[in-house]
Order: sequence, then structure tokens, then C-alpha cells
Amino acid sequence: MTHSDRITCPVLSGRVTSAAEAAKHVEHGMSVGISGFTGAGHPKAVPGALAERIALAHSRGEEFRIGLWSGASTAPEVDGRLAEVDGLDKRLPYNGDPTLRRLINAGEVDYVDAHLSHTAQQAWFGFFGPLDVAVVEVAAVLPNGLLVPGSSVGNNKAWLERAEKVVLEVNRWQPRDLEGFHDVYYGTALPPHRIPIQLTHPMQRIGDPYLRVDPAKVVAVVETDAPDRNTPLTAPDDASRRMADYLVDFLRHEVRAGRIPPSLLPLQSGVGNVANAVMEGLLDAEFEGLTAFTEVIQDGLLDLLDSGKLTAVSATSFGLSPDGVQRFLANPGAYKGRILLRSQEISNHPELVRRLGVIAINGMIEADVYGNVNSTHVMGSSIMNGIGGSGDFARNAYLNFFVSPSLAKGGAISSVVPMVSHVDHTEHDVHVLVTEQGLADLRGLSPTDRADRVIAHCAHPDYRDRLRDYVDRAKAARPTARHTPHLLDEALSWHRRFLDEGHM
Amino acid sequence: MTHSDRITCPVLSGRVTSAAEAAKHVEHGMSVGISGFTGAGHPKAVPGALAERIALAHSRGEEFRIGLWSGASTAPEVDGRLAEVDGLDKRLPYNGDPTLRRLINAGEVDYVDAHLSHTAQQAWFGFFGPLDVAVVEVAAVLPNGLLVPGSSVGNNKAWLERAEKVVLEVNRWQPRDLEGFHDVYYGTALPPHRIPIQLTHPMQRIGDPYLRVDPAKVVAVVETDAPDRNTPLTAPDDASRRMADYLVDFLRHEVRAGRIPPSLLPLQSGVGNVANAVMEGLLDAEFEGLTAFTEVIQDGLLDLLDSGKLTAVSATSFGLSPDGVQRFLANPGAYKGRILLRSQEISNHPELVRRLGVIAINGMIEADVYGNVNSTHVMGSSIMNGIGGSGDFARNAYLNFFVSPSLAKGGAISSVVPMVSHVDHTEHDVHVLVTEQGLADLRGLSPTDRADRVIAHCAHPDYRDRLRDYVDRAKAARPTARHTPHLLDEALSWHRRFLDEGHM
Repeated sequence: MTHSDRITCPVLSGRVTSAAEAAKHVEHGMSVGISGFTGAGHPKAVPGALAERIALAHSRGEEFRIGLWSGASTAPEVDGRLAEVDGLDKRLPYNGDPTLRRLINAGEVDYVDAHLSHTAQQAWFGFFGPLDVAVVEVAAVLPNGLLVPGSSVGNNKAWLERAEKVVLEVNRWQPRDLEGFHDVYYGTALPPHRIPIQLTHPMQRIGDPYLRVDPAKVVAVVETDAPDRNTPLTAPDDASRRMADYLVDFLRHEVRAGRIPPSLLPLQSGVGNVANAVMEGLLDAEFEGLTAFTEVIQDGLLDLLDSGKLTAVSATSFGLSPDGVQRFLANPGAYKGRILLRSQEISNHPELVRRLGVIAINGMIEADVYGNVNSTHVMGSSIMNGIGGSGDFARNAYLNFFVSPSLAKGGAISSVVPMVSHVDHTEHDVHVLVTEQGLADLRGLSPTDRADRVIAHCAHPDYRDRLRDYVDRAKAARPTARHTPHLLDEALSWHRRFLDEGHM
Repeated sequence: MTHSDRITCPVLSGRVTSAAEAAKHVEHGMSVGISGFTGAGHPKAVPGALAERIALAHSRGEEFRIGLWSGASTAPEVDGRLAEVDGLDKRLPYNGDPTLRRLINAGEVDYVDAHLSHTAQQAWFGFFGPLDVAVVEVAAVLPNGLLVPGSSVGNNKAWLERAEKVVLEVNRWQPRDLEGFHDVYYGTALPPHRIPIQLTHPMQRIGDPYLRVDPAKVVAVVETDAPDRNTPLTAPDDASRRMADYLVDFLRHEVRAGRIPPSLLPLQSGVGNVANAVMEGLLDAEFEGLTAFTEVIQDGLLDLLDSGKLTAVSATSFGLSPDGVQRFLANPGAYKGRILLRSQEISNHPELVRRLGVIAINGMIEADVYGNVNSTHVMGSSIMNGIGGSGDFARNAYLNFFVSPSLAKGGAISSVVPMVSHVDHTEHDVHVLVTEQGLADLRGLSPTDRADRVIAHCAHPDYRDRLRDYVDRAKAARPTARHTPHLLDEALSWHRRFLDEGHM
């Protein structure tokens, strides 16, 4: 049964078993740490087997719910399956699955939406209690027991170290050539024993190409051969292309002003079609010698690598389309030494993001006229996905951009509002807003000056007058409270109107 | 006229002049960077002379307003005087002056409320435009032209380097013994040339005891002999003592649980009576070998140093009461080697705060049931002071606390509300809330679990039922939007009611 070329460690090859057997190590009430980031590198078999085990227990009238900790988003066969059988009690630090989202918003699953650079350290600090089982996908187990990571690293190092028991999934689908694409930093420690992270360039190696595991903790090894989620990307639409153009023009302007070097500074781009479109926008720009220090490698970054404009990418995960995967698999050697995958506490580390001077580009749900950004909640209460790494990058960036079309739901929703219904990035942290209408540079401005720019440059014309009117009336209503003018009975009325009447 | 023992550099002693002459270097429309942090180390003479110059220009019908950049808060003779004569156009990154606050809230001065660790680097990045003049107070000028800093360092290094012209105030009141109390890091650089900051202990020296200045830029040296602001502290009241007790008990609990070493981790405490009371609470606790990595040294830290329980304090400024100053002046030698003042970009640096694992304790204006914290705005629109360093510390802390009495205005205001009227620290960043009612540990909790704890442990009993009722009705109103239950037409109604009727 053993694919001996993928599991060549004598001790661990003796632990090969079925997913169903492996799933038996998980009991009701346990916390389980899994691999997986942006649909890459999540375990493919054990979560499904666990879901069956949970469903069976439920059919017998037994309680069976677990806490699930990941790197970031996984895939339907993980979060979706476990949510369907009502197997999740708590989930952290990020979710993108629609089935699970529904349960979270129904109040049936406790969701802890956390900065991705914080999860591993907070697990170490003991904020979440003990970790019972880790289920981690790898590409191979070497003769000496070292693990070749797969298409994401995420929190795997922390889970392997923290968990009492470890289940490994060895996925034959993960390219064997991934060996050498990883840099797992083993210099972390708990305060007061922490030392500087000696990284000064996105491609610098500061760790090992392998994950380590104490073989005594490995209770099961499961072989799989199944692909990552690999969601197709939609081709950039007109709005995305315009946003990319504004953003690239602005970078050009900053280079001319001497505020950014001609090869820019390390780029970070969030996940999704808009962020991907921005990266594609750089393909046609004049910038050369680019680097990226980011979370996820989407197709746009692969294009930039292929073009030669991008020399190096540090990330924690791939997040490619099926086409992107094929492109990578066709010639992994072409990317070796130009891509490094790190633990997410390193890829997103405030120390490194600030030191490198990252240019951070992230999507948003909405912004208010004063520059507060909502990345997570729809109409104040429903979680969309989560904050992810946007806070790690935006707060510490040299320059940050938040990007969104100015309208949603066919114009029923304005993404520029009087007051955001939830704040993920405060007015103190937001530099530049971009919509298909234009770009608002908010650096060094007071709240009311920000409002002028956001309304003039980012709001859709259909909403501009009403936003202007809101600010004007707020200023008039309380002449001694004009730092951040608000009408408290109207500030959230746009959202309420959408809920009541279907439009803002 | 020259106090030769304080200005012993031949070149610079030749530039000694009056405050009125020095103020002539400032023209309408200029940006001026001044020293000063928490009422310590601000220039004592030139701002007043500049205010006179501005008033005179205004009396002639001429425009004369400047941008003023500081470390943090100054004193009535700086912000107050310049505000009184309508001399300020823009102010950053922090203000605590009541006269200026009134103008900001009247919409007459643009105020940019920024993280204190961000100001220097953003000035270097060019976010605020050129800096025309720096006015920096020092304790002495050495024969080689090096400057002995005074009772704060703040942004002085950045202003001295960035400004086109420099005015020095040499204040005889500043103890000459301060020489050796400073550590000014000269390893900063702009990306992509930044390197790790090699600091692993609060008292580690990584820089020089002196500030440097290019003598060619020094257009004036003014001698002064005037005290810092040195605001008296009020004795801790009953509520403060109870908050301190809860907090110290919680630290004890964390030590017992093995999550914090018995000597704790480096402490940061915000400015004000409550934070000071917490430090006094540690005086009676069993913890020994404490350290502090903080912004400001208030009397409470001096007490802890005197008791021997605190071994070392890193900060950027003193913020002592008149009594505290006398205590320090009586025997500066007793504190040498146990106090280091650094630039605020270092004292508050995310890299260092995270590495050291700081325990951050900051005041707040209000928190909402879901754990969002407002540190800056009264009723959504009026600025109080500013975010200061609270974001630098809280986001990167090992453990953070936000502290406030549960009531204000004799009970008319609840500091626990359904939704904060302004967000400075998001739900992703807040660990523990403390009021005189109790302590809510929010780590690892979902929003609705946080609400249960905040209402039960922190809200005043007079408001508890209404908060519970709000959350319950919000859950009932939208069964598919229960991640962060809100009623958008009521979320800010408590604040509106206060404005309309004088009570929440």
C-alpha cells in the first residue's frame, strides 16, 4: 500500500493507515489543528473521514463537535464537510467556506477572526487552550523523518510542535519537486527569549526546507492523491483594470517623487480577482526587478515571474487557478530559487513587513468617508471571510492600498459610506483608497480633508451628493464637534435602508 | 549671556540669541517640528515668541499659520499659546492641550491623529511634505557639538535630521545629570536598506547617549531656564484601586497558569491616573525583577524603581508630577543605568514590542460589548487627545489590557456600549477589558461570547440589563446575521441619547 518513494522513513512508513483509522484519534471536544491556506495544502482525506465519524456519533445521539484551527481557508472537503455534519464548535483564524459561513452567521459556530500573524504565537501563549491533534498534509516524508511541505506552510510548524498527537497526510498530488521551495524558520521562541529575525530581503533563507516532527507523536500516516482547491480566476473586468491602472499610475507618481525606488518595494497583494488584476496591471508597466513579500502566490504573481519583471516571491502559500497549477507543474525548476514558502507568522510578521517596507494591496468590503475600512462584515453583523493578513500588512506597510469597486449589488450598495458598519482598519492605518472611480491619497490628512478626497475620487457619482450632504449636515449640526463630523442617527442608516428596502 | 557650562561648543555658542530672534526663522505656511512628549522636553521660549510674532502679523492683516509636528503632547506655552493666536493650520501626531482641542473640534485646525511609532518614518517617507524648521530643547551642547537630550527624546532625532533649519533651546532647568540616561538609535534607514534592530532586553543600549545635529543647520541657540509641565497626579481613587487589583490578580493567575514568567514580561502603561494606579498596585504585589518597555515614566514607575521591584525602564519621556521630579532630582545617580530614554520610533516599535512580549496597559474612553475600543473620540465626533502609542503597544503586545471606570459623568455615560462611536482598537486586537466592576478576558472568544463576558464583568449594573437586552434583540432580529449581532438603528442610539437628553 505504501508509495515508498513518498514515505521513505522506516519508522513513519510503519504508521501508514486509512483515513478512517486516523480519524479515530479525534474525539468530541478536542481541538484539531490542520494544514491549509487559501485552498492549498489542506488535508484531503482525514477531515472527510472525521465528518463521517461525527455524523455516525450524532446518529447515535452522541455529542461530537470539535474546535478547528487552520492556517487560513481550506476547501469544501474540510470546512464544508465538517460544517454539514454540524461537527464544528469553534473555528479560527479564518474561513472562506460558504457552508461554514452560514453556520457562523446563524450563531451556531463560534468563529474567532484573528490576524494571521498572531495565531501561532497565541496558540503558543496558550490563549486557545491545548491542541489535541494536528492533521498536516505534506508532499513527502524523508528517510530521516523530515517532512517536505506541500503547497502551503501556514501554521503547520506550530501545529506539529504544539499538538499532542500528529496525523500526517502524504499527498502524491503535491509535486515532489516542491522540495527546496520552503524556508521554515526554527528561531521562534516565547518572550523573554525572542531574538531578532535576521531577514533583510524577501528571498533570504533563514530556516530549513523541511518541517520537523517528533516521530513518537505521529499516530497515523495517510496516503492521498488529490488536488488542492485551485479556484479558477475570472478574467479582470473593466472595473478591475481601471483600479489597476490608477494604482500603477500612483506608484509611478511615487517613484517620480523619489518616495519609492524604481524597482518599487516588496509587494503584498490580497487574495481575489481584484488583487490579481492589479498584479496583472504591473505586467504592462515599466517597473523591473520587482519582489514580493506576501501571503499567497496567485496567477498574477506567476505571470510577473514568467515575464522576468518579478525576481522573487516570499509567501506562505500558493493560491493558483487550475491553469496556474498546470503552468507551475510544467516546469517547477523554472521557479526554484525564486519562490520561497514560509510559516505564516513569518510571511506576515510585523517586524519583517515594516523592515522591508512592503507595499500592501488589499481588497475591502467598504470604506467610510473618513478612511476607516471594513474588510470582514456585511451590514455590520454577518461575517464574510475574515481579516486574514490584511491587518498584519496594512498596519506595518510603507504604503497601503485598499481596493474595491465603488458599487455592489448592481448599484444598490455603495462601498463608500458615511460610517462603516464594522471597522477592521482604522483611520490611523489607511493610506490610499482605490475604486474604479479613482484614487484617494489620504496620507497626512485630517478626517474632513480625507472625506473631501474620498467622496470626490472614490465614491460612485450616484452616491457622491448624498455623501457630501451627510458631511455638510454633520458639520452644521454640531459646530463644536467637527473633527470627525457624524450624525449619529444617520451614520448607519444607509446599511439599515439596504436591509429594509434592498438599496442604500 | 552664555551659560558656558551648558553650551561648550565654540561654533554653537556663537549662535546664541533671543527667542524673538530665533522665532523669525519661522514663516507663514512652514512646517515646524518641535521636541516634547507628555509635557516634558518641549521648547519653553521660542513657541511663545513665535505666537507673539504671529499675533503681530495677524494684527497687520497678514496670514500666518504653521503646521506643528511634535513627539506627543506639549504644554500650554506651546500648543495653548499658538492655538490662542490662531497660529496653527495643521497639528500632528498627538495633542493634549484643551485650547487646541477646542479649535480642532471647531474644525479650525487640521489634526492628524497618528500612531506614535509611525510619525518619524512617515516624515522620512515624505508623507507630510518638507520640514522647514526644528525647535528642539536639550539639556546641554557638548564641545564637539553633540547634544545632551532633556527629559524626553520623542521625535527629536528625526526633526534634527529632516529640518532645513534648526533652533536649539538649551534649558538650564533640565538636570545636567541627564547625560547618560539616553540611548538614541542611529541604525534607522529607509527601505530597502533597513536592518534588524538588535535589541533583546529593555535596558540594552543600541545607540548613543547623544543627539547629533549638523552645526551648519543650526540658525539659533536660545537659553532657557523653565520647568516641564509636570502635571500633579491625583491619588488613586477607589475605582482605580479596584481596577488595579483585578489586573494584578489576573497577572497572578497567568503566572500560576504558566503563561507569564514570575517576573512578568516588560510592562507598558499608558499615561494618566488610572495607569499610574495600576503601577502602584504592583508595589504591593509579590512580583520581583520587573522591567518596563514603555512610552512614559510616571510616578508609579519611579515608585517601583525605588522599591527595587522594577529593575529597569525603557521609555521615550518622563511624565512626572512635581513631586516625582523632586524625587528624581534629589538623586539622579540612583536611577542611572536603570532608566533609558529612546526615540519614540524605538520605544514604541512594533518589532520590539512583539519581540519583548510587552504587557500593555492603556486607558480607553469606551468599549463595546464585542470588544472594540474607542480611545480617541467623544460621542463619535469630538477628539479627546489621540491614539498615542496605544495601537503600537496593544497590537503587538503579548497581552493587552484596556482600562476605564464603567461610568462617566456621574453615571450619565456607560463606558460599555452596544457599539463604540469610533474604533481605535478593533475586536481583533483587544485581549482584556477592566473596569471597577471586574475584568473580561476576551482572548480566543467569538464576538457573542465576548459580549457575555463584557456585560457580566465590566458593565455597570445600571446598564447591564439594557446591554443584554440589546444583544438578545439583535440576535432575534436577524437570525442569519448573528456573528456580531447589531440593531443598526439602535447601535449608536445611546450616544445620540446622551447628546439629546444628557444621559445614555
